[in-house]
Amino acid sequence: MKVLIVGASGTIGTAIAKELEKDHEIIRAGRNGADVQVDLQSTDSIKDMYEKIGKVDAVINASGGASFAPVAELTPELNEVAISSKLKGQVNLVLLGIDYVNDGGSFTLTTGVMMDDPIPKGVSAAMANGGVKAFVKAAAIEMPRGIRINNVSPNVLQESLDKYGDFFPGFEAVPSSRVSLAYKKSVEGKQTGQTYEVY
Amino acid sequence: MKVLIVGASGTIGTAIAKELEKDHEIIRAGRNGADVQVDLQSTDSIKDMYEKIGKVDAVINASGGASFAPVAELTPELNEVAISSKLKGQVNLVLLGIDYVNDGGSFTLTTGVMMDDPIPKGVSAAMANGGVKAFVKAAAIEMPRGIRINNVSPNVLQESLDKYGDFFPGFEAVPSSRVSLAYKKSVEGKQTGQTYEVY
Repeated sequence: MKVLIVGASGTIGTAIAKELEKDHEIIRAGRNGADVQVDLQSTDSIKDMYEKIGKVDAVINASGGASFAPVAELTPELNEVAISSKLKGQVNLVLLGIDYVNDGGSFTLTTGVMMDDPIPKGVSAAMANGGVKAFVKAAAIEMPRGIRINNVSPNVLQESLDKYGDFFPGFEAVPSSRVSLAYKKSVEGKQTGQTYEVY
Repeated sequence: MKVLIVGASGTIGTAIAKELEKDHEIIRAGRNGADVQVDLQSTDSIKDMYEKIGKVDAVINASGGASFAPVAELTPELNEVAISSKLKGQVNLVLLGIDYVNDGGSFTLTTGVMMDDPIPKGVSAAMANGGVKAFVKAAAIEMPRGIRINNVSPNVLQESLDKYGDFFPGFEAVPSSRVSLAYKKSVEGKQTGQTYEVY
């Protein structure tokens, strides 16, 4: 299969590429230094990316940012990062990409554990993740041409503990290699509308 | 208690006001003809509303729109209605309102059954609802001064069957009077972070 990975240079994206490149042709997309450049916050950039790469069998997104702040300090402006990146970026990758995915192909988006198991300062990310999860579940029932859509919700990664560990006290970190298996299941399996929780 | 109801003239808002005005002072807010005017899509309008009304004990939102379209026809622009209204409108009502809610007060937002039980053309509304649900769950753990936050997720209303019934085949419609009880539970109870499903 031809698999597009957006955010391929991140910790999760790298693990997904490593897992899937064994059996598939990988196209790496990202803001810099990838096979094709894309900024998910720009619909024009998403359209340009799809025009450049043409048809694929699977689209995976492993990118998306959010502001970390306590709810009492979160402003509408700070919250906009998660809205435009984690939520709209991922949703628009699907809405603008349906025509570029082959029959029976798939989209796999990325959410995260804080939507189910909230952490201090994680409210904006949780909001975006919950939106993506519900979008996936609802979109799955009416995707055309047998196209499937799932999302993977990882726990904090072992590889990211230095950077993010303090935000996730008591969370049992998972290795990115284990998270990458959920993307493989989504791409190579037949399920749709699922949230693969890697907790 | 002093209870602000945004969207008080809608079907749900009217039922909430009818239920709560028995025991509370109600301030009705909406785009037209209410005690105070507000457009949740404008942060300035939300700020103006709170400045006009001052401190309250409970904030309820029963407003919010979304485009209804199949996922294959949903454009980023059509999806923006749910993002700016149902999602950001409700979230910003909270972010900008915390300082106006008395200690131990509450916010109650509105989601909807299609986030759990998807319907054709309902993907954009489902997305926004899922975002609000996750926001509520995450915000609840760090709201200051004992302020609580919940959301009510109603099924299609019996009163709206003429207008929306065709979108909800086989759904068991609920009367708005039953839905209004969930808001009463949120306002007068002590729970937080809950999604009250009135299915």
